[in-house]
Formats: sequence, structure tokens, C-alpha cells
Amino acid sequence: MTDVQTYSYIAGFLDGDGCINLQLVRRKDYVLGYQIRASVTFFQRTVHRSFLEWIQSILGAGFIRERKDGVAEYSITESRMVLNVLSNLTPYVRLKKMQCNLVMSVLEEMLSSKRLEPAHFLRLARQVDRFGELNFSKRRSIRSDQVEAYLRSRQLLIP
Amino acid sequence: MTDVQTYSYIAGFLDGDGCINLQLVRRKDYVLGYQIRASVTFFQRTVHRSFLEWIQSILGAGFIRERKDGVAEYSITESRMVLNVLSNLTPYVRLKKMQCNLVMSVLEEMLSSKRLEPAHFLRLARQVDRFGELNFSKRRSIRSDQVEAYLRSRQLLIP
Repeated sequence: MTDVQTYSYIAGFLDGDGCINLQLVRRKDYVLGYQIRASVTFFQRTVHRSFLEWIQSILGAGFIRERKDGVAEYSITESRMVLNVLSNLTPYVRLKKMQCNLVMSVLEEMLSSKRLEPAHFLRLARQVDRFGELNFSKRRSIRSDQVEAYLRSRQLLIP
Repeated sequence: MTDVQTYSYIAGFLDGDGCINLQLVRRKDYVLGYQIRASVTFFQRTVHRSFLEWIQSILGAGFIRERKDGVAEYSITESRMVLNVLSNLTPYVRLKKMQCNLVMSVLEEMLSSKRLEPAHFLRLARQVDRFGELNFSKRRSIRSDQVEAYLRSRQLLIP
């Protein structure tokens, strides 16, 4: 199988049953109080764990964990790895292309500067809000307003 | 995009979120009382109907209907078309390969004879039972025992 074929297959599977996510996570030990976390996740019945291991061997990143309900989750969460995986898959993705592009653009900005300025971080957090709308997310998630309030409370934003 | 790429993508999507089915359906107007019905179905939010239309244009068969819950279903149910579609996709399918092969073998037998003998039909109905196990089907479905009882009640099986 060529790479193009393999990536096309995985992109189809991701569009069908996979999940691309971009979210704000509270981190009490971070100066900015929050982390922007991207992830790519694939699910499958634990009996088909070897299928997830095959995807893992192709994408070369991430971890598989077995949930108690008989479902195995294969997730890639390390920012540089998510960027790399999405760079490979996005050309073949159809339904979730906007999500891929948004995640990649946020990650590229994050990874290109060693230390994000608070105002810059807040601009990226605003993009995370947009992502929730793309993903039809119904879960209550942290929004950039909260990040802004936190940064202001710490006098990290000027004015 | 080449055909191989397109079929790989669709096979991935089918493995992720699609459904291959093979079932016994009661038909009061059929001599044998039952029909063996194969289907391939893809689902998507109705807002992404155009995505299903794209798959339909590639596979060249089937119909799309919009359910009231905001989900569109694209189904291929005509036996000859299901066989044709699966012949194209199966080389690229990974998770549902056994289902594909079983459906194709049953359809090939069905389509190769103009009129199935009752005993032959019952043998195929037994294969449909096997399919339900492959698909982890939890729904109560018609089993070949019922077909056999029907055929016996009509004196269509010897002895």
C-alpha cells in the first residue's frame, strides 16, 4: 500500500468516527493559567485494538488506552505530534478539513514562539472558541473570556 | 484524485461510520416468504448532505433520505448494486472485511441463479445468521429457523 492510499484510508476513518479537538484546559501551575490542548482521537472496540495499533504504527505517535466499557481510545495529544499527523492527513480529509486547518494554524503559532505573550495567547484562545462551534460541541468547555478574566486578574494584560 | 485514493478514503469512512448489513425480511408476496436483503449505508448530518452526494456520485448507486432528526442516510440496497459497490471497496476495507466477503458471496450465489430452490435459499439464510454475529447486532432479527419453519409449513422443503 502506498502512503497516499494509507493516508486516504485513515482520513476517511477519521472523518467517519475520529475526533479532532482543540480546547482550553485549566493549569494551575502555568503562568498563563491555561493550556491550549489539541488532540486527535480514534475509537474502536477493544477486540479490534490491533486496528488502532496499525494506525499508530503509521502515524508514529500517541497512546492507546482501554476504557472499561470495551472501547479502546487511541489519542495523539503532544502538540508537535498532532501538527505532524494533521499535516499528513489533512490533504485527504473531507468533512473535518476546517477543523484540521484551524488546529494546525493555532499549533504552528504556538510552536513558533518559545514563550507566548499573554495577549498573543488570548488571541489563540479566541480561535479555540471558534473551534467548539465547528465541532458542534455540546459539552460545556472553557471559553477565552475566562482566560481573559484570569490574565486581567493577574495584571498580565495591558491595558 | 485517483480511484484507488477515493476508494481507500470511502473504505475508511465505511469502516468508521458506515454500515454493511445482510438480513432476512418477511415478504408475504414471495413464494419463499422471505427476502435476503443486503445494504450498505452511510450516515451524516443533513447539513453535510453534499458529502453523501459525493460518495453517491463515486459509487453510482443508491438513494439519500433525510431523517427528521437532522441525519441523512445514504443507502444502497439493490442486490446487484451492493455487489458492485462492495467489489470496488472491499480491497481497501480493513475492519469490515469479513462482512464484505460474506455479503458478496451470498449475493453472488443469489444473483447467479434465476430462481433459487427452497433448500438453496435456506442454506443462504443460514449464512445471514452468521452475519448477525459478525456485525455485533443486538437487534432482534429474523433467523433462518423461521425461514425453515415457513418453508416446511408450505411443503417446500424435502423431506
